[in-house]
Amino acid sequence: MTGENQKIFYSLYEHERKKVEAKLSTIIKNRKPASLYGPGNYILEGGGKRLRPILVLLSAKAVKKNSSSSFYNAAIAVELLHNFTLVHDDIMDNADMRRGRTTLHKKFDISTAILAGDSLLSVAYEYLLKDCNGNAKDVLASFTKGLVEVCEGQSLDKEFELLQEVSLNEYIKMIEKKTAAMAEMCCKIGAQLGGGNEKEIKALTNFGKNIGIAFQIQDDLLDIVGDEKEFGKNVGGDLVEGKKTYLLLKALESARGEDLEKIKLIIEKKGICREEIIFYKNLYIKLGVVDEAKKEIKKYSAKALRLLNNLKHAEDREIFVWLADSLINRNK
Amino acid sequence: MTGENQKIFYSLYEHERKKVEAKLSTIIKNRKPASLYGPGNYILEGGGKRLRPILVLLSAKAVKKNSSSSFYNAAIAVELLHNFTLVHDDIMDNADMRRGRTTLHKKFDISTAILAGDSLLSVAYEYLLKDCNGNAKDVLASFTKGLVEVCEGQSLDKEFELLQEVSLNEYIKMIEKKTAAMAEMCCKIGAQLGGGNEKEIKALTNFGKNIGIAFQIQDDLLDIVGDEKEFGKNVGGDLVEGKKTYLLLKALESARGEDLEKIKLIIEKKGICREEIIFYKNLYIKLGVVDEAKKEIKKYSAKALRLLNNLKHAEDREIFVWLADSLINRNK
Repeated sequence: MTGENQKIFYSLYEHERKKVEAKLSTIIKNRKPASLYGPGNYILEGGGKRLRPILVLLSAKAVKKNSSSSFYNAAIAVELLHNFTLVHDDIMDNADMRRGRTTLHKKFDISTAILAGDSLLSVAYEYLLKDCNGNAKDVLASFTKGLVEVCEGQSLDKEFELLQEVSLNEYIKMIEKKTAAMAEMCCKIGAQLGGGNEKEIKALTNFGKNIGIAFQIQDDLLDIVGDEKEFGKNVGGDLVEGKKTYLLLKALESARGEDLEKIKLIIEKKGICREEIIFYKNLYIKLGVVDEAKKEIKKYSAKALRLLNNLKHAEDREIFVWLADSLINRNK
Repeated sequence: MTGENQKIFYSLYEHERKKVEAKLSTIIKNRKPASLYGPGNYILEGGGKRLRPILVLLSAKAVKKNSSSSFYNAAIAVELLHNFTLVHDDIMDNADMRRGRTTLHKKFDISTAILAGDSLLSVAYEYLLKDCNGNAKDVLASFTKGLVEVCEGQSLDKEFELLQEVSLNEYIKMIEKKTAAMAEMCCKIGAQLGGGNEKEIKALTNFGKNIGIAFQIQDDLLDIVGDEKEFGKNVGGDLVEGKKTYLLLKALESARGEDLEKIKLIIEKKGICREEIIFYKNLYIKLGVVDEAKKEIKKYSAKALRLLNNLKHAEDREIFVWLADSLINRNK
């Protein structure tokens, strides 16, 4: 891809992101009661890449049957749903910080955060319905499937914390639900709202799923190779927490002898000290786990992009290629 | 109403309640992962009157355009939504007991309860969608409006706990959202699914709203005049917690001099001792607050029933009359 094209796609992305951001900044803020929507607005103000709304908008555009319609309400809906999961997950993970700011339940309290999360979800459905017409049932079913799976994925993730052994296969199944189901859903409802045919909807749905898996493995990888300043969270945080990431599970599979004992300690001791991060980073590199993760990310990303050959217009494919590239080469 | 008719309606209600109960007992239990749906099933096993599903079924039957269709999935959906609110409310209220059993977050933990609640809501949408066809958008919009309002109502209720002064008017507005919006929604989606015309949908919707308000004031009243064994919770519990119920706010409005000082103490001291319950019960009676509450319940109930004159068939009205009577004469 030429540098010129990259610039065009970046400015297209920025254009849409700003439109989503502008809408997001008002819709919750202006609702009453303030005791409910004020805290809800707090999490939205934290920013973020707004990737999920962009996936909705790009998918709708790629199938462009109803080119006169706009789907910003649906785009808003998926971001509200995403933020609902963040608020509740942060309570469950007892997290202090999110996007460089105090988490909602630490800023207010757990009750306020539970209810603020619930109401973000309720408004998500409200906004999604604004953009639904003839195919409301299909769109709502896709959105609801995403919600069901994200709850199941979070439950599996919490379950894994307590298990001594989790296979890579089980891990992929978990992230399919916890992370990929949302990207899958965004692309699917975009394609449905845009009036895509069955083949297009299927292609974009599976694109979303595969890019979602690549995204999560990249997230796991950034915990080891990320740039602290760019990444926005402490590098090595997953190691310190003993989180069962793709890299840890791959290391458990690959390591032998003394190396394996060292890797097992991460799980047995429920995490490592900050001082040991460098040691484990080097061990991961030595075991080839970092390269394996990179290969896996490329595999899922390539699979995602191949699916887009089912789109009619080659030019619609290009921005997804750029987006996929940006995601797997990101350092934050 | 004759005793014979009462028996017929009761057995009709019981027939539907058992069908709802049978469905409810399997749908969540058999889903995986068990770490998510097991706790969700725990709250459903607690039983209850299953009034909300009955309102859906009766409303659909009253307009019976699609008499061949059945709406048990939608009925299940409203009960799942209701139980989602119970699970999250119990965390916020730090409640130990619900329907004579340990609350979900005390039985498991707060994280499990948050996620179990979320997933009950997700499955609620899934089930509602099963019964939607041409008018999916309208039905989903009604359901979502109910969800939005129940969150707003809960937030107002929590807000009121911290306020020194709440007017009766503000209180009614709060229960319109927290309690009545759900009954309103149940009747509305029943009427919509059943294929009712605009007039019928409006009549049933407003019936639901008014019967919902009557139900909540009755609940407040039962805290003072309920039979402990029948009521299933401690009589006087609202007084002990200093909860701003219809009766307390009415007492604040009516009392003068020393009586008013006594009533104000309930709020200032954030509740009373169990030993003072009898004193306050007698004070409420003396102030005419118990009678006022009864009058108000009858007022809303009568208004609800008058709205049903808009239904075509008089016989459809009868079971609602019986249901309203049962609700306002219940002692649990």
